[in-house]
Amino acid sequence: MADAMNSAIDPPIIRLRPKANARAIRHGFPWVYANELVVDRRTGKLPAGTIARLQDADRADLGLVALSPGSQIIARMLDRDADARIDGDWLAGKVRRALAHRDRLYDAPFYRLIHAEADGLPGVVVDRFGDTLVVQPNAAWAEALLDPLTEALRATAGATCIVKNAASRGRAREGLDDVTKVILGEAPGAPIPVPMNGATYMADIMGGQKTGLFFDQRDNHRFAAGLARGGRVLDVFSHVGGFGLACLAAGAESALAVDGSAPALELAAAGAAASGHGDRFATRQGDAFATLEALAEEGVQFDTVICDPPAFAPSKSAREAGLRAYERVARLAAPLVAPGGYLGLCSCSHAADLAAFRGASVRGIGRAGRAAQLIHTGFAGPDHPQLPQLAETGYLKALFFRL
Amino acid sequence: MADAMNSAIDPPIIRLRPKANARAIRHGFPWVYANELVVDRRTGKLPAGTIARLQDADRADLGLVALSPGSQIIARMLDRDADARIDGDWLAGKVRRALAHRDRLYDAPFYRLIHAEADGLPGVVVDRFGDTLVVQPNAAWAEALLDPLTEALRATAGATCIVKNAASRGRAREGLDDVTKVILGEAPGAPIPVPMNGATYMADIMGGQKTGLFFDQRDNHRFAAGLARGGRVLDVFSHVGGFGLACLAAGAESALAVDGSAPALELAAAGAAASGHGDRFATRQGDAFATLEALAEEGVQFDTVICDPPAFAPSKSAREAGLRAYERVARLAAPLVAPGGYLGLCSCSHAADLAAFRGASVRGIGRAGRAAQLIHTGFAGPDHPQLPQLAETGYLKALFFRL
Repeated sequence: MADAMNSAIDPPIIRLRPKANARAIRHGFPWVYANELVVDRRTGKLPAGTIARLQDADRADLGLVALSPGSQIIARMLDRDADARIDGDWLAGKVRRALAHRDRLYDAPFYRLIHAEADGLPGVVVDRFGDTLVVQPNAAWAEALLDPLTEALRATAGATCIVKNAASRGRAREGLDDVTKVILGEAPGAPIPVPMNGATYMADIMGGQKTGLFFDQRDNHRFAAGLARGGRVLDVFSHVGGFGLACLAAGAESALAVDGSAPALELAAAGAAASGHGDRFATRQGDAFATLEALAEEGVQFDTVICDPPAFAPSKSAREAGLRAYERVARLAAPLVAPGGYLGLCSCSHAADLAAFRGASVRGIGRAGRAAQLIHTGFAGPDHPQLPQLAETGYLKALFFRL
Repeated sequence: MADAMNSAIDPPIIRLRPKANARAIRHGFPWVYANELVVDRRTGKLPAGTIARLQDADRADLGLVALSPGSQIIARMLDRDADARIDGDWLAGKVRRALAHRDRLYDAPFYRLIHAEADGLPGVVVDRFGDTLVVQPNAAWAEALLDPLTEALRATAGATCIVKNAASRGRAREGLDDVTKVILGEAPGAPIPVPMNGATYMADIMGGQKTGLFFDQRDNHRFAAGLARGGRVLDVFSHVGGFGLACLAAGAESALAVDGSAPALELAAAGAAASGHGDRFATRQGDAFATLEALAEEGVQFDTVICDPPAFAPSKSAREAGLRAYERVARLAAPLVAPGGYLGLCSCSHAADLAAFRGASVRGIGRAGRAAQLIHTGFAGPDHPQLPQLAETGYLKALFFRL
């Protein structure tokens, strides 16, 4: 595996075309697009994950990049020092720096430890659940360096168990397998209790995306919880109970979680019980749209309603259909909000920017015959940093309205 | 004063031109632009503050509006029911609804109680400092109804002292005076202690804008405080110590506040003492730009640096110069941030939108030779609601970077 390290061999040189935006790269832009690179016979044969020395058209060094020949983003910046050595020490340095930030932010070791580009490790995501880490090496360079990365995480973050999660669709484009497995220590035999916002969540990290845990909504959970004191909460697309359990911990009278996944709702109920709020928590399995309609027919209302659906607009081609789906969520949820109550609407779609998502939400609320104040706009938490050069692509948006 | 109330007289009718966007108004847009209204001899004579019945070109009622004949925004929606009575009961209803929201959000009665359009009272701002309220009736309709508004605030929010603040520049356009005075009870004889984020701030509400208190940054103060534990904090354009005192309350080792206003810094120091952190708080009076340069020459660094300047781009014409000023703030502040430390940059300029302000900030950081992660984007707190239709005009932006 260590072949991908450039410590022993001189990395191959790749070069930008004269028309490429070398200036942007020099000023911090981390990607090279395929049409910016000179691809000759030699570079065309370099395998995915090759670490190469990037030069501008005048042969001036720009840094070390990782190649993804099959991708639109053909190279990603690893180090602006073209003479850097991408090895275990280098990886440990990145982990230490990321860790220092999270140590400052959080009292307990449950967070996103590595958030790809912004933490200096393109394509690499690491979530921390105490001494257990879930690593997503979604780029070939990182898969090739998985052994030294594992060692860096063990030594630097004190991990005793590391799970490689290979579920990302991006891995196939990089020629990588889809086998999720334990690569250090032993798999946890039960869901891991995760403390956040005063609640305890249950994370089944071996069960895949439907039953894991997302840390990105932590701050939005907390904002919702501040609104929910003493009230009835409806948590739609609840997954393992993100919003509902935080609201109960903050003193909500009751929370009803709606989701299509029975395993997710079981984990939510287990979390509610572990948080000591099992008696105020209920679940309802089923299609979220159908359940919203059914609740309206039943004539029930809630003081706070939150909808955190999956990405309806994951790509540009899905944008219009996605925005219609967000509008529909808003239209079906608004009638369930009691007068003066709150409606939280979330989007984790890259392709629907803030203004478009807000527009769809406001249209949906309006079509339900309700008027709204916008009281809060939230994004992913600070353990999900962004490169400012890529900030437009921030995927997670949470809008809170008072109706 | 009660002449402006429409309870006794039929309000005059004003009409949209056929080309006006009646649909947007029907869907919640709260303003009528001057070029959208039929202005004949009769309507041309209506005084500022007149409450009128707005109709579309087909004479269908759209609601009751308040007129501002001298303004680009010639009419602002008061009530979508054209038969509503704009009287003391109506005002009390708006205050009650606004109060219910703040009661839910905050443990102590210190917040923006009325935030103009979004709280249903166009041009009216009310800040609450316990039993003392500061009212800004920045529209003629509200000035005309100041007596019943005062009574509604007394009866509904339990105010024992109400100060009318007339410092807004918008008042002159409405033909209103600029005399700040007490209109209920007695003026407080000393600055009012205001609890926020674990600190105590000192608000001199009779001293004018330079020594009052802004509630809009509360959530951004709290975010900064979460970063500042154990570190050295520099609070530039500190006013009465907004960021610095919150950071000290959260466990910062020290805070240095820089501002051009000696009275503001005196209040900041008094707040630090009242918070029990006087020994860890220092001030430096002077021009912020010059002080940033001086600190760099002295070679000092801080773990967290926050810059919250006045609006550099208050209008479209000031936009480019304003963005250059924001870039300069970032360029001068970045060198003062220790490696791995944090830089918070704020803008309260309407005319500089989020993307433009972020761009200027990132350019400034880059010109200082530093690379940054963007970890958080914040806005005004939830006691500053917005009409979603006007959300693009959200003025306050706070960006937090890790360098």
